Amino acid sequence: MTNPLLPPLPDLMLEPILRAALLEDLGLAGDITTSAVIAPNQHVRAEFRARQPGTIAGLDAARLTFALLDPKSHFEIFAPDASTVQSGALIATITGPASTVLNGERVALNILSHLSGIATATQELVRAVAHTKAKICCTRKTLPGLRALQKYAVRAGGGANHRYRLDDAILIKDNHLALAGGVKTALTAARQRAGHLVKIELEVDTLQQLQDAIAVGGADAYLLDNMTPAQLKDAVTLIDGRAIAEASGGITPKTAPAIAASGVDILSLGWLTHTVQALDIGLDITPA
Amino acid sequence: MTNPLLPPLPDLMLEPILRAALLEDLGLAGDITTSAVIAPNQHVRAEFRARQPGTIAGLDAARLTFALLDPKSHFEIFAPDASTVQSGALIATITGPASTVLNGERVALNILSHLSGIATATQELVRAVAHTKAKICCTRKTLPGLRALQKYAVRAGGGANHRYRLDDAILIKDNHLALAGGVKTALTAARQRAGHLVKIELEVDTLQQLQDAIAVGGADAYLLDNMTPAQLKDAVTLIDGRAIAEASGGITPKTAPAIAASGVDILSLGWLTHTVQALDIGLDITPA
Amino acid sequence: MTNPLLPPLPDLMLEPILRAALLEDLGLAGDITTSAVIAPNQHVRAEFRARQPGTIAGLDAARLTFALLDPKSHFEIFAPDASTVQSGALIATITGPASTVLNGERVALNILSHLSGIATATQELVRAVAHTKAKICCTRKTLPGLRALQKYAVRAGGGANHRYRLDDAILIKDNHLALAGGVKTALTAARQRAGHLVKIELEVDTLQQLQDAIAVGGADAYLLDNMTPAQLKDAVTLIDGRAIAEASGGITPKTAPAIAASGVDILSLGWLTHTVQALDIGLDITPA
Amino acid sequence: MTNPLLPPLPDLMLEPILRAALLEDLGLAGDITTSAVIAPNQHVRAEFRARQPGTIAGLDAARLTFALLDPKSHFEIFAPDASTVQSGALIATITGPASTVLNGERVALNILSHLSGIATATQELVRAVAHTKAKICCTRKTLPGLRALQKYAVRAGGGANHRYRLDDAILIKDNHLALAGGVKTALTAARQRAGHLVKIELEVDTLQQLQDAIAVGGADAYLLDNMTPAQLKDAVTLIDGRAIAEASGGITPKTAPAIAASGVDILSLGWLTHTVQALDIGLDITPA
Amino acid sequence: MTNPLLPPLPDLMLEPILRAALLEDLGLAGDITTSAVIAPNQHVRAEFRARQPGTIAGLDAARLTFALLDPKSHFEIFAPDASTVQSGALIATITGPASTVLNGERVALNILSHLSGIATATQELVRAVAHTKAKICCTRKTLPGLRALQKYAVRAGGGANHRYRLDDAILIKDNHLALAGGVKTALTAARQRAGHLVKIELEVDTLQQLQDAIAVGGADAYLLDNMTPAQLKDAVTLIDGRAIAEASGGITPKTAPAIAASGVDILSLGWLTHTVQALDIGLDITPA
Amino acid sequence: MTNPLLPPLPDLMLEPILRAALLEDLGLAGDITTSAVIAPNQHVRAEFRARQPGTIAGLDAARLTFALLDPKSHFEIFAPDASTVQSGALIATITGPASTVLNGERVALNILSHLSGIATATQELVRAVAHTKAKICCTRKTLPGLRALQKYAVRAGGGANHRYRLDDAILIKDNHLALAGGVKTALTAARQRAGHLVKIELEVDTLQQLQDAIAVGGADAYLLDNMTPAQLKDAVTLIDGRAIAEASGGITPKTAPAIAASGVDILSLGWLTHTVQALDIGLDITPA
Repeated sequence: MTNPLLPPLPDLMLEPILRAALLEDLGLAGDITTSAVIAPNQHVRAEFRARQPGTIAGLDAARLTFALLDPKSHFEIFAPDASTVQSGALIATITGPASTVLNGERVALNILSHLSGIATATQELVRAVAHTKAKICCTRKTLPGLRALQKYAVRAGGGANHRYRLDDAILIKDNHLALAGGVKTALTAARQRAGHLVKIELEVDTLQQLQDAIAVGGADAYLLDNMTPAQLKDAVTLIDGRAIAEASGGITPKTAPAIAASGVDILSLGWLTHTVQALDIGLDITPA
Repeated sequence: MTNPLLPPLPDLMLEPILRAALLEDLGLAGDITTSAVIAPNQHVRAEFRARQPGTIAGLDAARLTFALLDPKSHFEIFAPDASTVQSGALIATITGPASTVLNGERVALNILSHLSGIATATQELVRAVAHTKAKICCTRKTLPGLRALQKYAVRAGGGANHRYRLDDAILIKDNHLALAGGVKTALTAARQRAGHLVKIELEVDTLQQLQDAIAVGGADAYLLDNMTPAQLKDAVTLIDGRAIAEASGGITPKTAPAIAASGVDILSLGWLTHTVQALDIGLDITPA
Repeated sequence: MTNPLLPPLPDLMLEPILRAALLEDLGLAGDITTSAVIAPNQHVRAEFRARQPGTIAGLDAARLTFALLDPKSHFEIFAPDASTVQSGALIATITGPASTVLNGERVALNILSHLSGIATATQELVRAVAHTKAKICCTRKTLPGLRALQKYAVRAGGGANHRYRLDDAILIKDNHLALAGGVKTALTAARQRAGHLVKIELEVDTLQQLQDAIAVGGADAYLLDNMTPAQLKDAVTLIDGRAIAEASGGITPKTAPAIAASGVDILSLGWLTHTVQALDIGLDITPA
Repeated sequence: MTNPLLPPLPDLMLEPILRAALLEDLGLAGDITTSAVIAPNQHVRAEFRARQPGTIAGLDAARLTFALLDPKSHFEIFAPDASTVQSGALIATITGPASTVLNGERVALNILSHLSGIATATQELVRAVAHTKAKICCTRKTLPGLRALQKYAVRAGGGANHRYRLDDAILIKDNHLALAGGVKTALTAARQRAGHLVKIELEVDTLQQLQDAIAVGGADAYLLDNMTPAQLKDAVTLIDGRAIAEASGGITPKTAPAIAASGVDILSLGWLTHTVQALDIGLDITPA
Repeated sequence: MTNPLLPPLPDLMLEPILRAALLEDLGLAGDITTSAVIAPNQHVRAEFRARQPGTIAGLDAARLTFALLDPKSHFEIFAPDASTVQSGALIATITGPASTVLNGERVALNILSHLSGIATATQELVRAVAHTKAKICCTRKTLPGLRALQKYAVRAGGGANHRYRLDDAILIKDNHLALAGGVKTALTAARQRAGHLVKIELEVDTLQQLQDAIAVGGADAYLLDNMTPAQLKDAVTLIDGRAIAEASGGITPKTAPAIAASGVDILSLGWLTHTVQALDIGLDITPA
Repeated sequence: MTNPLLPPLPDLMLEPILRAALLEDLGLAGDITTSAVIAPNQHVRAEFRARQPGTIAGLDAARLTFALLDPKSHFEIFAPDASTVQSGALIATITGPASTVLNGERVALNILSHLSGIATATQELVRAVAHTKAKICCTRKTLPGLRALQKYAVRAGGGANHRYRLDDAILIKDNHLALAGGVKTALTAARQRAGHLVKIELEVDTLQQLQDAIAVGGADAYLLDNMTPAQLKDAVTLIDGRAIAEASGGITPKTAPAIAASGVDILSLGWLTHTVQALDIGLDITPA
């Protein structure tokens, strides 16, 4: 059931996060409620169901959560990552001992609803700009330890990813410009020192900065920060296809269509990953 | 500047999270932008400033982020955790080499704005119910690896914490009741097996369940799930001070006052930690 | 073969401890004796047998030790955790390559004999007070990294567990009282700040302290430290069923019956986990 | 205050054990008792005092426990590792914030009293055989993760260490002999394959086995298992100074003198590390 | 003494590697030779000296090795990273207790001589092509866990870095082409799916493949594999400055000048990091 | 297919190294080239083939690399560790999804070619001294974190291992002698303090030092440093079979035969592990 456009994160990457999350939740004595009130031989079937419409992300993490607790439990996927579901839809089932399901329930739901929340918000924006060529893109405004997962969820929602780290592209921002002595000096230095497989992006707040950049040979991409659609249009004209035009700064689902219509290639939004509305997903358990 | 009502998380607890977050962001080659465009001997002073009103949480994590990069950098706090600030307020400063400040900027901001977002939302709810005795409380709906920090942020916002883990209290929920054979059986089993320092809470959806519980001796606390203020009032009357009354289920800042006025002791809200609106905090860097 | 009264520790919790223990014992070159003197294709069957009577705990750790070395080795349990065996009894068998069995032998025996030693001592005390309602309980006087296992062993021996950590209950001890300004101040502060699912226990050395506590509303439990059976009886009378009465301080199998007969609910003993007499268990290997 | 005969374990080796132990005890919310009842600005001085006579081991671990919680706390040693103290003796002091001292108290005491218990038992045996040349030696019967510390404690008590791991010497035991086809085959194979800096020890239960070993060139050391003093004497005569003679099996302080008088070089005792009676050490805290 | 062209790896990145290396070397009992034969209060001064000419890399790792053993030891640098030294040159000194210096000696030398070996070989190649614009570049053929350090050493030798990981650039190699159905299909797919800050490089073995690539719009860089200088010249002509030309395949110091003279931008060599001749560096210790 | 003379390293030991290496190479976004250009359902068969003659080591690490990525992939060994192959020989095959094979390719090749390089160089030396009794032996000059693997590769090449760590044998080197006051003092101190299963080796540069050592009872082994074959012969005569004679210092395949012919037992060479020429091994992938 692999999605050709969304290669899964390897279990290798998920496993340390899930082991830590399970130990964080189980503590030293484990699930003392289940131990106290549920018969140890009770087997159950439980259904993950959406309680609101949305786009799903994180099922590999949910699957692995239960597999780490009990390799013999069985997880089946009905609405894979990147699929958009209605309220009430069956997403996945987990079958196994009641203790396995109840021990892993909260960890699985916490990750699944968080990542699905990111995918859902991304998907909403992707649709809002579908009439344009613009892509929706996240940033490095992610939560500690969760960057790979959060950026995966953006892809599950149909979005694209910006830099993963400080070391995979050069992005010269306002603070760098202030310290480096302006656009021309900074951009020239960056081009001299960048590796040959490293792209250079420059944040510009004004068209003048953009012109300065072009005057010294230009960057591979421009982060056009807090510009109006009209300013963006002018910037796009100046760039003229020789570099990527990326709009950023306070973009919302409402303002996105006009911004995208300016002709920019990318809309990047920090809040896709820093301000996440969890997708409401429930787990309904019945004796098996 | 220790707040008597908010003991800090020990650095010991923050350090592994911050080391991992820094390595996640620095990758293997580090901050190639700063290396390329900023002179290595450049020193800076940078100010953390609120860009919207809110309640602060996470300054120890921000401080330690920079200290791990450079023990000689200097972090000064102006608006400590739990303080509520206006837009534009100076929260803290970091002074040191430009590379230290720029290498740690994103990690520090990501955590600080996330935790301050939690504190701010909590504080809003605390104020909404300030005319009652009710406390605002979070749940286990936290992000993997961040539970201690997120629950600390709730306290910074004036809220209280529910269970930290599956092993520090018994909470019999609807799924347990379905599998255990009902309120009376489950509650009796729980009391027989609970440790002597472990409290027992029971989730009830109806007054009948509450009466069943009281009939077999009662729980230490009741999670009154998805009840109207009127139902909650009846529940509080039935409980009659012999146990904690906790309301949960779809509570918002708008509905909180009426719910709190029902006489419950606790309002618990999963979204305090699973649906966080990051507080907008910026870092303004100037040469030092 | 799951014991309803003794849910197993999840492998997830045991695995890091066992991996570290195996690497600690194998070093970098591994078991150079077995490599030098045993043919690599030799298969064996080995029996864990008690060399003295006792109560067993730790078989999941023993099983997982060998499974980590070789998933195809076969571990079979004959006397499960919590069972009491005579000298010579067969506890479990491990079948597999000689190198697997010999590589894991010491790690498995070290843990199994340590935990069985705890279970055995606990069981002896449980029997000593079986004519009363008192429970036998351990403390936080455990060895670094082994708390979950040691407390599990106490349960396997029929005992109960006190706090698992500093964060799951409030226990106001003599040092706190000295610094906080006495029973009334400390207890009042604790009640104001405790979470709603957190119990409060107070250590008292005298009946006066107990009366002071009751005068300000009382605690959920009292740790009656170093009292004689007569004093304990008076304390129980004062408490009058409104709180848990826990005796501690120098309790031995000899003194336990009289202490338990005082009417206290709990006898807690640090030495159950800090002064462990390993149960003598041997591993007898024969070619398979 | 470094003891020339007892080089300290590097902090590097202690730190991971202590960090894990502190996090195990602090949980996610930390020391909620101290937070609730002690003023945050309270400073204290606390004394570690022996409550029974014994030999001290583990002060570096105790020191580092507090340093990890607060680098500015001050730990002073009065009775260093390897010193033997009377009941009531001052061992060390810790000065700092009350929260630092109370947060680290249990972890520091658990390790210090465990290791001092090992040192004390070792020292008792060392004295019991002081009239002979025999050394007291521990085995690999240690607790998971604590081998370096427990073996250090044996040295602090005046004892010596056997193998640290399976990979630093060859020790052919009864199980190996059974699988390898007897003393001559096993010993010959071991000599052929042992590294040039690896010693070979052979466990023998009978004088015949010892003669067989000598007949094929002998081992570097013999583990004379469960022999009477008379048998040991005969074995020593047979060995005739060409190898180390080591007695093992059920040695107690009572039987040790006679065993040592047989002329063996080493008495090795598993129970020095697997059956530890913690030394009773208390921490008395006063406001500073 | 920071080199503007060679920003140091943060200690944060080095520390886990060095802690692991020290524990790997110290084992559980530590440096038993030094404990046995050197007085504990002996202080020393030791000099790192080159025993052959070369370029230095790894002094931060050497410094931190000793600092982790003893924060009060003093490390002074005389020939910083990236400097080229003659045989006999003083590189650095370490002053402190003899045990600190001897405990860390091997770990520090192992890393320093390995990284300096890489820097030296890189520098030799850089000089061999100094008459051209070509840069010397390493690959992902590094040793497990050491990639950041080995690539840093290449930079210290004056070289440049290729991809750090599979995730920071697209490099379509022969195996990909075979599976993807040829240059045109693969390159088109890569351009459709690459992030906007991700460069695409294509490995080509023939000029025909290069022409195919250009026909569908071209890549950002071409890896010209195993071509003769004449073929490379033709390839450079075809590329015509629109993309980076990178030569690879069996390049040696002897063949490098001719290859570089073909006009390519980059010479990449796997053996810079996979076949390292350690630089001979000694540590001479004298009492201090 | 276990080699009786070469017991495999347990997966337990390899797994942490391989997990870290895979995460180092995959980064956070994984293999973006394969994701972009290869169909997700493509299965392949890939052959590891030697591109030059050599001796193989590291196939367990290669196997486990792919198993960690996908437990269902199939790894088959054709030329096991310790076998010597011709150029072009098939070493092993891996069958599975293209993404599994391509994700693990570099990590598997990096380790396999490094360890095979060590085995190949060792084997060349073993053959060079095959006419003598001398063994070829490595040192502690290994790379951080890779000591167990590198020393295993030496064994795969037919060599032997010296100390694994500072704690498994005493080796008194020139620096120790300088600080300890000469051969007699150092050797006497070492013998007094060495554990009974610890051998003592002494580095000597001159025959006088050797005579001094013998005069005080001698060591178990002598490291004869930088001696000519003639000097070595004299040393061997002096030692007269009472201890191991080990030659070290600048030994090459050319000088090895004459050195070995001097009668020494051991030739030890640091460069076997510090200056490794990777064996050229390729992975040829075809659709399956």
